[in-house]
Amino acid sequence: MKLLSKMSPMLLLAAPLLFTASCKPGKVSETTDADAAQKVYVAPGKHDELYLFASGGFSGQLAAYGIPSGRLLKVIPVFSQNPENGWGYNENTKAMLNTSNGFIPWDDAHHPELSKTNGEDDGRWIFINGNNTPRIARIDLATFKTAEIIELPNSAGNHASPFCTENTEYLVGNTRFSVPEEGKDDVPIDTYKETFQGNVSFVKVDPKSGRMSVAFQIRVPGFNYDLAHAGKGPSHDWMFFTTYNTEQAHTLLEVNASQKDKDFIMALNWKKAEELIAQGKGKKTPAKYAHNILDENTHTATSTMENSVMVLDVKDFPELVYYMPCPKSPHGVDITPDGEFMVASGKLAATLPVFSFKKMLEAIKNKSYEGKVAGNLPVLKYESVLQAEVQKPGLGPLHTEFDDKGFAYTTMFVSSEVVKWSLKDYKVVDRIPVYYSPGHLSIPGGDSKKPYGKYVIALNKITKDRYLPTGPELTQSAQLIDITGDKMKVLLDFPTIGEPHYAQSIPAEKIVKNQKRFYKIEENKNPFVTSSEKDARVVRKGNRVDIYMTAIRSHLAPDNIEGVQVGDEVYFHVTNLEQDWDVPHGFAIKGANTAELLIMPGETNTLKWTPSKPGMFPYYCTDFCSALHQEMQGYLRVSPKGSSTPLKYGIGTKVEHQQ
Amino acid sequence: MKLLSKMSPMLLLAAPLLFTASCKPGKVSETTDADAAQKVYVAPGKHDELYLFASGGFSGQLAAYGIPSGRLLKVIPVFSQNPENGWGYNENTKAMLNTSNGFIPWDDAHHPELSKTNGEDDGRWIFINGNNTPRIARIDLATFKTAEIIELPNSAGNHASPFCTENTEYLVGNTRFSVPEEGKDDVPIDTYKETFQGNVSFVKVDPKSGRMSVAFQIRVPGFNYDLAHAGKGPSHDWMFFTTYNTEQAHTLLEVNASQKDKDFIMALNWKKAEELIAQGKGKKTPAKYAHNILDENTHTATSTMENSVMVLDVKDFPELVYYMPCPKSPHGVDITPDGEFMVASGKLAATLPVFSFKKMLEAIKNKSYEGKVAGNLPVLKYESVLQAEVQKPGLGPLHTEFDDKGFAYTTMFVSSEVVKWSLKDYKVVDRIPVYYSPGHLSIPGGDSKKPYGKYVIALNKITKDRYLPTGPELTQSAQLIDITGDKMKVLLDFPTIGEPHYAQSIPAEKIVKNQKRFYKIEENKNPFVTSSEKDARVVRKGNRVDIYMTAIRSHLAPDNIEGVQVGDEVYFHVTNLEQDWDVPHGFAIKGANTAELLIMPGETNTLKWTPSKPGMFPYYCTDFCSALHQEMQGYLRVSPKGSSTPLKYGIGTKVEHQQ
Repeated sequence: MKLLSKMSPMLLLAAPLLFTASCKPGKVSETTDADAAQKVYVAPGKHDELYLFASGGFSGQLAAYGIPSGRLLKVIPVFSQNPENGWGYNENTKAMLNTSNGFIPWDDAHHPELSKTNGEDDGRWIFINGNNTPRIARIDLATFKTAEIIELPNSAGNHASPFCTENTEYLVGNTRFSVPEEGKDDVPIDTYKETFQGNVSFVKVDPKSGRMSVAFQIRVPGFNYDLAHAGKGPSHDWMFFTTYNTEQAHTLLEVNASQKDKDFIMALNWKKAEELIAQGKGKKTPAKYAHNILDENTHTATSTMENSVMVLDVKDFPELVYYMPCPKSPHGVDITPDGEFMVASGKLAATLPVFSFKKMLEAIKNKSYEGKVAGNLPVLKYESVLQAEVQKPGLGPLHTEFDDKGFAYTTMFVSSEVVKWSLKDYKVVDRIPVYYSPGHLSIPGGDSKKPYGKYVIALNKITKDRYLPTGPELTQSAQLIDITGDKMKVLLDFPTIGEPHYAQSIPAEKIVKNQKRFYKIEENKNPFVTSSEKDARVVRKGNRVDIYMTAIRSHLAPDNIEGVQVGDEVYFHVTNLEQDWDVPHGFAIKGANTAELLIMPGETNTLKWTPSKPGMFPYYCTDFCSALHQEMQGYLRVSPKGSSTPLKYGIGTKVEHQQ
Repeated sequence: MKLLSKMSPMLLLAAPLLFTASCKPGKVSETTDADAAQKVYVAPGKHDELYLFASGGFSGQLAAYGIPSGRLLKVIPVFSQNPENGWGYNENTKAMLNTSNGFIPWDDAHHPELSKTNGEDDGRWIFINGNNTPRIARIDLATFKTAEIIELPNSAGNHASPFCTENTEYLVGNTRFSVPEEGKDDVPIDTYKETFQGNVSFVKVDPKSGRMSVAFQIRVPGFNYDLAHAGKGPSHDWMFFTTYNTEQAHTLLEVNASQKDKDFIMALNWKKAEELIAQGKGKKTPAKYAHNILDENTHTATSTMENSVMVLDVKDFPELVYYMPCPKSPHGVDITPDGEFMVASGKLAATLPVFSFKKMLEAIKNKSYEGKVAGNLPVLKYESVLQAEVQKPGLGPLHTEFDDKGFAYTTMFVSSEVVKWSLKDYKVVDRIPVYYSPGHLSIPGGDSKKPYGKYVIALNKITKDRYLPTGPELTQSAQLIDITGDKMKVLLDFPTIGEPHYAQSIPAEKIVKNQKRFYKIEENKNPFVTSSEKDARVVRKGNRVDIYMTAIRSHLAPDNIEGVQVGDEVYFHVTNLEQDWDVPHGFAIKGANTAELLIMPGETNTLKWTPSKPGMFPYYCTDFCSALHQEMQGYLRVSPKGSSTPLKYGIGTKVEHQQ
């Protein structure tokens, strides 16, 4: 067991610079270029082969790219406001960003996770974690829209999330930052070891609707938890987590959390936890957390505040978790397609241990412990669970995915490379530099039972000189690598939004077959829908003015409105009456303290506006929709508060309506 | 003079569908594909040849792409909040989105305009208009950051903007929606013809600093103004505008603004206006508008409210403007590289008139009028100013740019094509379908004196089946077309953010030479800078808590803070101490009602937070910066209001500081 224990963290810090400096761009030969050009080119009018869903990292969103072209097809707003289409600004979606701390316009989204059936990506939903304010979101892949967001109580830094079990029975969320229990958390920071605790949430997913609910939480020792992965096949009942800062330091972690040679992989038997909960062994514990759902028929979100969770504490149920020693500060644990082996990456270590699930069960049975941790929790003997160590994989191993030919691919953050090794003999068979400092990598289905081993996509943190410069703030980037041959070949660099923290890719046909092209107007159950132009109207109740407006090429109805007053609460409920694909309309009014509406065919969206001064306010369609788009405009007159200007509205030569 | 006057606007509406239906994708042959693949492929580590700056349209931002690869290099936040890097959320940049109507988090950005010297793109700045809340922004191309935003009073829909004169003496902004004068605008909408007026703003640009100021405004008739372009060379003193809705309709414009056969090109002599202002002929008029500047040394914005503008009314100075009849509802007017001809596109017309500047001067001299408009403003005879009509160009001509070989390229919105025609004989020489419904097009330098005629980029509004589907909301798109040969060739489709309303492209070397890679810490004049870790501290004054924090791989200092209370106004002033390229740090704290900070090396950014409940709040670096990034975290303890917990802070093993 060789560990890089003596290498100072400070020295490792400098390593990325050393390594990247020696990797000069532009080395790819002309012959390779021509070949690669053909492989990534998607001719005009043809479609990409795969979707790649990459997290926006600190953008809080999820982005869909086409592979092999690397083209950004869509930014799906999830946890952050998106001025481009009104997400988090309009009345329909504001509630999606509600939390127990109120409205939060941003998050740090790390790990997209495709829903699975029998351990294979099924293309129905994709989930992603909010790392900052602990949340999990579900995106509906029929509409590419965020359908649901659920908060996780008693957590901070929901990083090991939202990895799912084999049939999407559960999604997991775990504290990266341990914190004291809610309501008991105004304590001195230096009581860390006594009062701070870890927490694993299991979120149940309804197999039909996809609706999420916090099924139970498990209190675990106050370590930092990094990534997780569910078992599959033989290991179906288990979830595996990496831990770091098992030193339980609370300051200067870059030094203090790297003291020990080993941290742990925590194996958690979620099936047993489920049974304990079913047997009533859980403790109902007060906890406040938001649950937000975007209704598919009203296209409007509701936010509910939940008040309790069922809790199991591993102190009371030590049989739930077993710890396996792992080279220090592991960042990831990945499960082979057959569910037999767990690959752990100690980012400060020089070897890559592969653990055997079968051996783990035997070690548990034989009580092959090397000690206990956090009081009464068994630590299995390293040798008793180890299958093999991959020797000299590279520096700073982070994450591993698998192809369909028995190979594993691991990113090396510090030495900036992707390393291919065999699951047969645990020997490195190929390595390729990437530019620079890769975090995760993605093989289509590469964490599932059925990888589609044509490409690996390296997700790089640093790009420096890889693209035309854009001032001090540079893009992060992905690199597409061909893995069909014996030797890996880099085909393409393509920039990404935010940080491409993790990504999952999937053959396009699994998504294309379920696509929704527009919303049927007769299925629109929005309470403010205006189903035909003749129903367009303006209604005043006290100081609330509801404008029921329609949009169709190329006019808004009504397009002249008078009698609105300063201080009124004005609601524009705009229904897009189009019933065809790709005919959205936009809506904006001059000077409103909000973003635009971007309304898909058959949808109703609402913009709230409180005029603060009298005047003439033009409104218009913001999305170029036809040759007469520029003519798609109207005027709203605002009079002073208490003015006698009557409420009037109309369009064209119609007699104006007066209320 | 043949106009499509009898074609119903309603019929034209349907045309895009008819035309697009017949353009099947995937027709490009294999041979062409191979050739095109080579032409657009930029091998890993190599750089693109050109920057393309495309407006985000309704996203409110500006995006930089690499050409020929079509890769999105950077989204530059301008008028809209950007959660990804805190633009419009952090204390440094909030003031950039200030207006006379208060804080506005969004706009509709249409026309990027590169600064020019001697009529050529000089790569110093790029300007862009805010269409909804009339504004112009200046982006510094050394940093790719929005440096300044100025509001335009008495305007609504700043669409004909910000086109610049030959040496960037002025930028122009014009009302798309005429409105009554500010302060006199609570009037019935049906008094449109009497009370609504157009307004042209001339914004002066300081040649050294780029600083903008509203030099003067010109009141013009209450039409809708679409696009503009400045003259150059012989026509240097003039600015040309398209008008529509010269019918002055105020409702159902899709019909009522398309009644007349002709609208106008308005030629405005800005040099004469400048002289009149210098002679004191302008009228100082009250007007409230914001002027926001991001200081380059503090990286912090200040917003000033201006109170007046100098106004010239064309009723008093009719010699300032001449009207030239133009086929109905023109959307664009474009000036040939030699400044001799003005090409106007009547989007509902069947011919493309080319006007001669020389003939225009003669017609003015000879008073060759066909009448007057808006009282006393001369309309020049169509025949007296016409150079030629391009016959049968296509349906729905919108915009024209020019190459360096004597050809013009015009987009046809309705017939979905780019049409190439000769400036020698005004004959169409080639046409190519684009997918679908192009608005603007862009040739590098294609509106300047020195076009770089290698590519034309078509900016398309509708994509439908061109990419893998993404639910009802689809991307808009650009198409890269090779124009080096006799026949145009489509090389690549690439998606864009928002709506690629207009774009300008420029050879990369003009931008690369001025790039700033990081900010020198010794030049950081931010009042809250912490220049070294030993100066990190926490200071309380009343209920205001200032946290002076540093970030460097891989820790934040301080990383333990206690004694903050519920209701305190907490300011995190985070200085990134790194002094190298591409080492940003991020900063976020759990549950804050704002976005993250993304801090470039040498910069100080400030996040404000008012904790609303007691508890333990982790904070951390959000941008993966080193192998020990995960360890770059801290805790802040919030106690109840009035708590006796003392203010304390520290890092590592240092003695904790207590205030």
